[in-house]
Amino acid sequence: MRTESQIIERILSGLARRAAGTKPGWLRLGIGDDAAVLRGTFSARGGRNAADLVLSCDAFLENVHFLVDVHSPDAIGYKALARATSDLAAMGAAPRFFMLSLALPASRTGAWLDNLIKGMARAAREFGMVLIGGDTSQNATVIMNVTVGGDVASGRALTRSGARPGDRIYVSGILGAAQLGLQLILRGLHREWKWKKLLEPHLRPNIQLGLGRWLAGERSIRAIASAATDTSDGLSTDLTHICQASGVSARIFTAQIPAVDVPKSLARHRFNSLELALHGGEDYQLLFTVPAAQERQVPKVFRGTQITKIGEILRAKSGRSSHVIELVDAAGKKTSLTPKGWDSFRTTSHKQ
Amino acid sequence: MRTESQIIERILSGLARRAAGTKPGWLRLGIGDDAAVLRGTFSARGGRNAADLVLSCDAFLENVHFLVDVHSPDAIGYKALARATSDLAAMGAAPRFFMLSLALPASRTGAWLDNLIKGMARAAREFGMVLIGGDTSQNATVIMNVTVGGDVASGRALTRSGARPGDRIYVSGILGAAQLGLQLILRGLHREWKWKKLLEPHLRPNIQLGLGRWLAGERSIRAIASAATDTSDGLSTDLTHICQASGVSARIFTAQIPAVDVPKSLARHRFNSLELALHGGEDYQLLFTVPAAQERQVPKVFRGTQITKIGEILRAKSGRSSHVIELVDAAGKKTSLTPKGWDSFRTTSHKQ
Repeated sequence: MRTESQIIERILSGLARRAAGTKPGWLRLGIGDDAAVLRGTFSARGGRNAADLVLSCDAFLENVHFLVDVHSPDAIGYKALARATSDLAAMGAAPRFFMLSLALPASRTGAWLDNLIKGMARAAREFGMVLIGGDTSQNATVIMNVTVGGDVASGRALTRSGARPGDRIYVSGILGAAQLGLQLILRGLHREWKWKKLLEPHLRPNIQLGLGRWLAGERSIRAIASAATDTSDGLSTDLTHICQASGVSARIFTAQIPAVDVPKSLARHRFNSLELALHGGEDYQLLFTVPAAQERQVPKVFRGTQITKIGEILRAKSGRSSHVIELVDAAGKKTSLTPKGWDSFRTTSHKQ
Repeated sequence: MRTESQIIERILSGLARRAAGTKPGWLRLGIGDDAAVLRGTFSARGGRNAADLVLSCDAFLENVHFLVDVHSPDAIGYKALARATSDLAAMGAAPRFFMLSLALPASRTGAWLDNLIKGMARAAREFGMVLIGGDTSQNATVIMNVTVGGDVASGRALTRSGARPGDRIYVSGILGAAQLGLQLILRGLHREWKWKKLLEPHLRPNIQLGLGRWLAGERSIRAIASAATDTSDGLSTDLTHICQASGVSARIFTAQIPAVDVPKSLARHRFNSLELALHGGEDYQLLFTVPAAQERQVPKVFRGTQITKIGEILRAKSGRSSHVIELVDAAGKKTSLTPKGWDSFRTTSHKQ
């Protein structure tokens, strides 16, 4: 069985690379980042300031990404748009529009659909997005595909490939919180009122659009961040993506990782806060690098969200490309961090 | 149970209409046509001739749109991109790029996936499109969502809403041929060599990109067609879409409809050629209207594809909006044509 990255490699070699020699001039950034970037021609901001158009698409599938008997249609609708739009945040883009391709069983076309749309409409209002197209089908399970579009000042999109040795590594918010919420649901603990609040990061991710735009240098003469991605797959996997795209390695410090706080009352469930933070996906925070010279510009808190420095970028290591991250524990002991974040082809089933 | 158009109506009222009062200036055409149009800012053609960006998305689902034990992965891959790109043809746009959201069982990630990609790559080369992004997941069935983008000269996109009383109605190619091919497969007749050729329109639709661009006036000082759509749902449904969007009704003549020729050797299967042509979907031909004054510009054959005049646009009729098409038979007898084309929520199962 192939892993997700092997499958992507197949698709790339069959479809994308074929055209590599003739990458069209209008395409600033193709496949392989959080989103694609079309060169300097979108004028949502009006006037002569043509911006780059940023496009991404994301599938959100019943029994793979959510369970209809556990997740409310409202939460599913909100999250479907939020997680797709998080890719625009990772590029530093301002979201503008989306398309919804929706398939569902006939039995869900009544109140369930109405509530799904309600949740999605709330997300659209919050992010300032307009629905511009879509497609509907009948299907045995609920299938959503969300295509999102936004804009960023010409040439300013944040990519995964700009990290350089010496750059500092930062992450926004708390890591592992979404995975903890998911685990509570999978263990049937989500009906207990005292843990309701712990479900929020899983049910309603707080995507970082404002931070993304600031990092892309919306208000500066140049970008703050040298590279960025969102923490959708888990820190170990997402940081590996940045390292591989940038041709560098990284060192992070366990003691500095803003790992989710697991309440003592959950002690008997043996959650490991650091493991959740390193490998739990779906936090939809931003992971980014900043050149040392610009370190002082990064605040401790950005509009209410904490920003934490967790390590630094190193020169590329020789050897296996999957071992590019060095993890340093509180005692100074170094280990190699294996990417163990979300891969729907490695995990047989995410939710069961 | 709701029909597909009632579901779209729910989505529209919940998501799209909310923003109707504040339709952003960059959005030339939103939801409700074959594709969305973003105003005059895409420069794939180079130079100062900024073009409109045209975007559409289409789901292609196992057990809904295709069967993996009947359709070859190569044919599925080709058709997934072709049917999505047909929406760009209907807008008169030149295709440029696509994104692929793919979910599939682990068991299909080997040779099956390679052949799927091969078929899709063939379509991409044929249409001149570049893969710019995507998403992969594991799922129990094969799910594809294809987002396509292209460009058309500023303000020239063909819409469904421009038909006016007196306009002539045309269709390209043969209607009902894809449905005949599908029916042969559903009845298990597709393994008989003598009927192999009849399967082609179903397996490998011949989308009309060149015709679409010509109708949008790529080589003229103005557009040839006043309205257009592709015949994806079936003539009765697709022409109803044009009538509803344009606020008109239509008269078509049975004797003029270029219906598929059913071989005499299939007589005992009682296929009705006219029914196939009126209600069989997936031909991906173009259905378009042309002002009477420009009628002479429409050739009988466009680059090898026959073009047939099938009727004319009339003033809107009062009464039920679903009965907007008058069908005139060879004897001059008039009947009302009910849209009975493809609706995945009306047909319990398309393929079984």
